[in-house]
Amino acid sequence: MDAAQEAHNREAFRQAVVNTLERRLFYIPSFKIYRGVAGLYDYGPPGCAVKSNVLAFWRQHFVLEENMLEVDCPCVTPEIVLKASGHVDKFTDLMVKDEKTGTCYRADHLLKDYCKDRLEKDPNLSAEKAAELRHVLAVLDDLSSEELGAKIKEYGITAPDTKNPLSDPYPFNLMFQTSIGPSGLSPGYMRPETAQGIFVNFKDLYYYNGNKLPFAAAQIGQAFRNEISPRQGLLRVREFTLAEIEHFVDPEDKSHPKFSEVAQLEFLMFPREDQVSGRQARRIPIGEAVSQGIVNNQTLGYFIGRVYLFLTQLGIDKDRLRFRQHLANEMAHYAADCWDAEIECSYGWIECVGIADRSAYDLRAHTDKSGVPLVAHEKFLEPKEVEKLVIAPVKKELGLAFKGNQRMVVEALEAMEEKEAMEMKATLEEKGQAEFHVCTLDKVVTIMKNMLSISKEKKKEHQRVFTPSVIEPSFGIGRIIYCLYEHSFYTRPSRDGDEQLNVFNFPPLIAPIKCTVFPLVQNEQYEEVARRIAKSLTAVGISYKIDITGTSIGKRYARTDELGVPFAITVDSTSSVTVRERDSKQQIRVSVDEVASVITEVTDGVSTWGDVLWRYPTHSS
Amino acid sequence: MDAAQEAHNREAFRQAVVNTLERRLFYIPSFKIYRGVAGLYDYGPPGCAVKSNVLAFWRQHFVLEENMLEVDCPCVTPEIVLKASGHVDKFTDLMVKDEKTGTCYRADHLLKDYCKDRLEKDPNLSAEKAAELRHVLAVLDDLSSEELGAKIKEYGITAPDTKNPLSDPYPFNLMFQTSIGPSGLSPGYMRPETAQGIFVNFKDLYYYNGNKLPFAAAQIGQAFRNEISPRQGLLRVREFTLAEIEHFVDPEDKSHPKFSEVAQLEFLMFPREDQVSGRQARRIPIGEAVSQGIVNNQTLGYFIGRVYLFLTQLGIDKDRLRFRQHLANEMAHYAADCWDAEIECSYGWIECVGIADRSAYDLRAHTDKSGVPLVAHEKFLEPKEVEKLVIAPVKKELGLAFKGNQRMVVEALEAMEEKEAMEMKATLEEKGQAEFHVCTLDKVVTIMKNMLSISKEKKKEHQRVFTPSVIEPSFGIGRIIYCLYEHSFYTRPSRDGDEQLNVFNFPPLIAPIKCTVFPLVQNEQYEEVARRIAKSLTAVGISYKIDITGTSIGKRYARTDELGVPFAITVDSTSSVTVRERDSKQQIRVSVDEVASVITEVTDGVSTWGDVLWRYPTHSS
Repeated sequence: MDAAQEAHNREAFRQAVVNTLERRLFYIPSFKIYRGVAGLYDYGPPGCAVKSNVLAFWRQHFVLEENMLEVDCPCVTPEIVLKASGHVDKFTDLMVKDEKTGTCYRADHLLKDYCKDRLEKDPNLSAEKAAELRHVLAVLDDLSSEELGAKIKEYGITAPDTKNPLSDPYPFNLMFQTSIGPSGLSPGYMRPETAQGIFVNFKDLYYYNGNKLPFAAAQIGQAFRNEISPRQGLLRVREFTLAEIEHFVDPEDKSHPKFSEVAQLEFLMFPREDQVSGRQARRIPIGEAVSQGIVNNQTLGYFIGRVYLFLTQLGIDKDRLRFRQHLANEMAHYAADCWDAEIECSYGWIECVGIADRSAYDLRAHTDKSGVPLVAHEKFLEPKEVEKLVIAPVKKELGLAFKGNQRMVVEALEAMEEKEAMEMKATLEEKGQAEFHVCTLDKVVTIMKNMLSISKEKKKEHQRVFTPSVIEPSFGIGRIIYCLYEHSFYTRPSRDGDEQLNVFNFPPLIAPIKCTVFPLVQNEQYEEVARRIAKSLTAVGISYKIDITGTSIGKRYARTDELGVPFAITVDSTSSVTVRERDSKQQIRVSVDEVASVITEVTDGVSTWGDVLWRYPTHSS
Repeated sequence: MDAAQEAHNREAFRQAVVNTLERRLFYIPSFKIYRGVAGLYDYGPPGCAVKSNVLAFWRQHFVLEENMLEVDCPCVTPEIVLKASGHVDKFTDLMVKDEKTGTCYRADHLLKDYCKDRLEKDPNLSAEKAAELRHVLAVLDDLSSEELGAKIKEYGITAPDTKNPLSDPYPFNLMFQTSIGPSGLSPGYMRPETAQGIFVNFKDLYYYNGNKLPFAAAQIGQAFRNEISPRQGLLRVREFTLAEIEHFVDPEDKSHPKFSEVAQLEFLMFPREDQVSGRQARRIPIGEAVSQGIVNNQTLGYFIGRVYLFLTQLGIDKDRLRFRQHLANEMAHYAADCWDAEIECSYGWIECVGIADRSAYDLRAHTDKSGVPLVAHEKFLEPKEVEKLVIAPVKKELGLAFKGNQRMVVEALEAMEEKEAMEMKATLEEKGQAEFHVCTLDKVVTIMKNMLSISKEKKKEHQRVFTPSVIEPSFGIGRIIYCLYEHSFYTRPSRDGDEQLNVFNFPPLIAPIKCTVFPLVQNEQYEEVARRIAKSLTAVGISYKIDITGTSIGKRYARTDELGVPFAITVDSTSSVTVRERDSKQQIRVSVDEVASVITEVTDGVSTWGDVLWRYPTHSS
């Protein structure tokens, strides 16, 4: 199959899935009667049920099993918090404007489309030009504003709809801005992630945890990105649910007590070096990946393992799931290591969970901005004697010498490492002055002996004070659910073979409705039994749908297979009923009184369908 | 006890509750390290757990038991939707500004404070003046902008902090405004309620329900109100979780099939007439309230009953819960009836759930604005022959006669009721012309015989097309939880009687943590047993806290009583353990293997503590 055919099939498959999802109201474009808003979707009834099931399982699998501290912070966030985190300055995409109509586009999208288009459709493309275009695609994410602008000019790219000329690229902040209170003087934003709400609470949470490390805090909630031009349907949206974990750990000890529980797990990993050297993702036991140093530390490895278990238990195909390590240029400068759980769907490999060791960056940023130390303490059993470097600038002398530059010089002096400081001390004592490079001024200045004193003092320390490292698994719930839909979808012929029927083979854990209740024919007695069963299902908390329309049983099965309902109860007598499993279409006979507990057993994960199958008489369909 | 003493006690009680809540991180003022933002609070770990438990029970009690269609819509909402709903024009509070500093205040708050202050503190107040101030307080909510402004001037009210003069009152819209997309041309708001997301989806949801009425849709989510100056701590906040139900029903049949299940419930109701005539709330069975016409219809009554069950099962004191009917001036003009579930706490009676019959207002508003008919159909078993009034204005003649006013005249003619139209028909036939009052012009015009034809035609109709009525129970989750905290809080002396200990007596259903696990003393064997028990609790989904510090058992109990943990497991042997109930402090001995299932039994609501107490040997504490 050639690439074009494959692309066509992927497109056709996606259309089939998305049509089913929209027709059965898993999703609804938000505000549809007003022609919608790009990048905003509603979860309709079955989609909403799947989402709550996924979140309930996330709580069970992470929060409850790991005793995490779950918090719930507001979406409205004052500017200062997002200034500290860097979002106000750096959470931007480069945008170009149609110079006549003012329509906005993402600069990198236009360049990407142009390159792809020419590579696919230009028959006269020289080998040299093709290589150039492929190179542009490869480095697209690294291009500066100027480089992007230059390429757009060079290729003569114009506005897609009007062919008008485009402006130079300029940064557009992706946060939804608003104003808190009536004065108009307190700018705020809708949070772009939930993590900041946890970081600013570190001090209280650490106290709540008995001033002990490690511990993890977690949060589920809405996050917002005002995309310039949302694409990829349900994958890139303007409002979405994140589930984030911030695991705080001593930077000097990133081992994990439960690592051995996941160490044997083996799954597709795609380390940085394999990507750079053009190899494929390969199966590596996570224990080995950590011991070989491919994954930075045990805690990061533990979470990678737990994420693998979470996703596969939801129903994600393990052969279409890989953990890809960030390349050096993808990673924030402060990050120690970062892996994405990527799931393959019709759009390609999609980042659904990011698992990053963010070191001490976030806590330090908020410490600096707020002045409140977000640190942990390790009490020593016995006080330790330590030698401490003391650098004491004499501000009066420095002020006289450097005037307006004084602050920069002082800060640079105070920031000296021990080795540099001791060398300067020697020089000053020997020569009375020393040359000193001030980074922030990009200049060498002369420091006189009377401008500072440098010494080492012995001190008794009772504790070590340090900023914890943060390991952050961050889950894009909507993306995971969309990929799950693609992985769960299949078609099979109807009984008479004249049409293809859609099925979602969700595991009972996340199926939107656990079972249906159908009276075989419309009659008072059967309906009475159906209502009795419905009541017993409600009592044990099993969601069901009752269908007393006269539609044929085959049609009713087809309708609910398309919603991914795993079990159907057909009332065909007043004492016992037929229970049918969705994928195998196998049927068993169960007494009316017992049926709710059988359904509970197979949906709770206590038993599988196979387990109950042999206990009951089967029924030919 | 006099009023001042009572107010003082209420204040002291509230302080005790709020201090405990903040110290144990049920709540945290959001962004505290940056000195917070008025009206924004985080749920810390125990608060967040209580909230998820309340929401899970809400889903079970309403969505699952009533087979509601739950949806999940975005918070970001385009302007047109909130224009249709009336929020852009009318969701406002009246604000005054300090004319020098620009600080903003709610006009009604300043007037209220002034009146209360003088009534409480002015010893020279004449009886006449006092009566006037009390009258102002009574009608405060009805005052227009002009009336409020006049009173503020008359009483010489100035800015509370600076004593500067104040501006005239003007409306301030309470929605957080933002902009969707990069152009700056698509204004949007953070939704002030979740309901609109359901209304705009009515057509799809009706189809999903098999084109049948009645059905209910539900939504849980964040809502936002940019309060001018948030007060009352945790009760009036700028971002909060709503859980809303929109029950769509045929306006000609508001009976409810399950009404008999709640009809016997008896609780405090406060009908409009009792309020007006100065009586107290009284216990009325809800069945009686509906049959006597106190509550407008069965469906409204059914939801009132279900809300009562929901709140009391959470732990709200039934003697401090009442259902108060809206007075005529409180109710929207379109509402058929409206009741608030009010819970008494230290702030007085607080509206926590609103249960309103909003008639067809919302669906009609969106039908008008979007042009998409949001209607239901009732198919007749046999076509019905109906006589239909046909009013056909002759636009050409009307245009010549009324020019620019033509449209108004045409609309008024078409809107005539049958009786009026038939009278006009008779007049026109008799006299050749008729006088006609056009409301929108506020003018009587003369209509000539050649300007319109009026007739009755027989038609066969196959269905009735109508706009459903909406019955809306809307839950302020944060307010319910706060009231629950006050109702659950008590203190008792410590064992040695020298201090008062705090307890939250949450029912197991909503307790943040279901049990604690304590090894009695620090030893390897006991800790091993504690870990085994912890694992078995995780397996059955019971949240627990393990405490292996060496703190005295009494202190450990006190700590967890204050978090409202209902059960404690103390490991004091390797074969059996002591289980202690929080409020009675009763203790039983249970074997290690059995303890997880005993805890499940008493937290799932299968058994009460009393049920298990007699089955096991008790243990003196």
